[in-house]
Amino acid sequence: MSQDQHLYLEDLVVGQTFITGSHAINAMQIIEFARQFDPQPFHLDPEEARHSLFNGLAASGWHTASITMRLLVESGFALAGGIIGSEATLKWPRPTRAGDILTVFGEVIDVRPSRSRPDRGWAEIRAETRNQNDQVVQIFTSTLVVQRRPAA
Amino acid sequence: MSQDQHLYLEDLVVGQTFITGSHAINAMQIIEFARQFDPQPFHLDPEEARHSLFNGLAASGWHTASITMRLLVESGFALAGGIIGSEATLKWPRPTRAGDILTVFGEVIDVRPSRSRPDRGWAEIRAETRNQNDQVVQIFTSTLVVQRRPAA
Repeated sequence: MSQDQHLYLEDLVVGQTFITGSHAINAMQIIEFARQFDPQPFHLDPEEARHSLFNGLAASGWHTASITMRLLVESGFALAGGIIGSEATLKWPRPTRAGDILTVFGEVIDVRPSRSRPDRGWAEIRAETRNQNDQVVQIFTSTLVVQRRPAA
Repeated sequence: MSQDQHLYLEDLVVGQTFITGSHAINAMQIIEFARQFDPQPFHLDPEEARHSLFNGLAASGWHTASITMRLLVESGFALAGGIIGSEATLKWPRPTRAGDILTVFGEVIDVRPSRSRPDRGWAEIRAETRNQNDQVVQIFTSTLVVQRRPAA
């Protein structure tokens, strides 16, 4: 860790892991997010959701992704320039349910300096979002822009 | 289109395109989303954002993704069983800015029936989210579960 507790590219190594704080999600949050961004019956109505592919109310995948981002930003991975990715892949192996308590388990899977920009580099991370039963609800990978530590 | 205006697997062909309605995003929406899900200075504060990699207030990529989902659900792609994907890839070639008007341009890039489940199949879609200047702010691809039309 650097003195300001922010991580620079030099602080990252492949295999490094981190764990975020947790977020408890409930039906009200699931429905509120869905009303705004993903208004489909299986995200809005517990009764209708019982008859859907999800067999019960399920959070929008974008809600799981957004909660994951909040956990990463607040407690996961304190990169000096922030968490900025230009692309991402997401997998949702099982739904996020009301009552789930989500925690993100991250790992650095690649680190490389930029050839053209001496002030930065890239770090590829893989982050699993797991529920309270250690079941994976989302696998997120992204290559982030990371600042190099300024010369002393 | 089927009589109920919903699309089944049999209604989809590779190369088929669709265009959603539009969503106008403003600074208040950007900041409100960021407060909830991505509280970083370049998504929260126009002044601080000027000194960031974004050179000005930028929407969270998850906000762009969530707006894209809403446009797809409401006006884009009326699949009979809803829009359900188990994975996705996202690219954000440029930031979404306050004042942008976003529209999603979609294309079906693969369609295939399930071998094991006669009631369903998969459709791969690619959806570009563009701003009012026709600049691409997000490229989203996903393989969706799609219902087959029930026998008459």
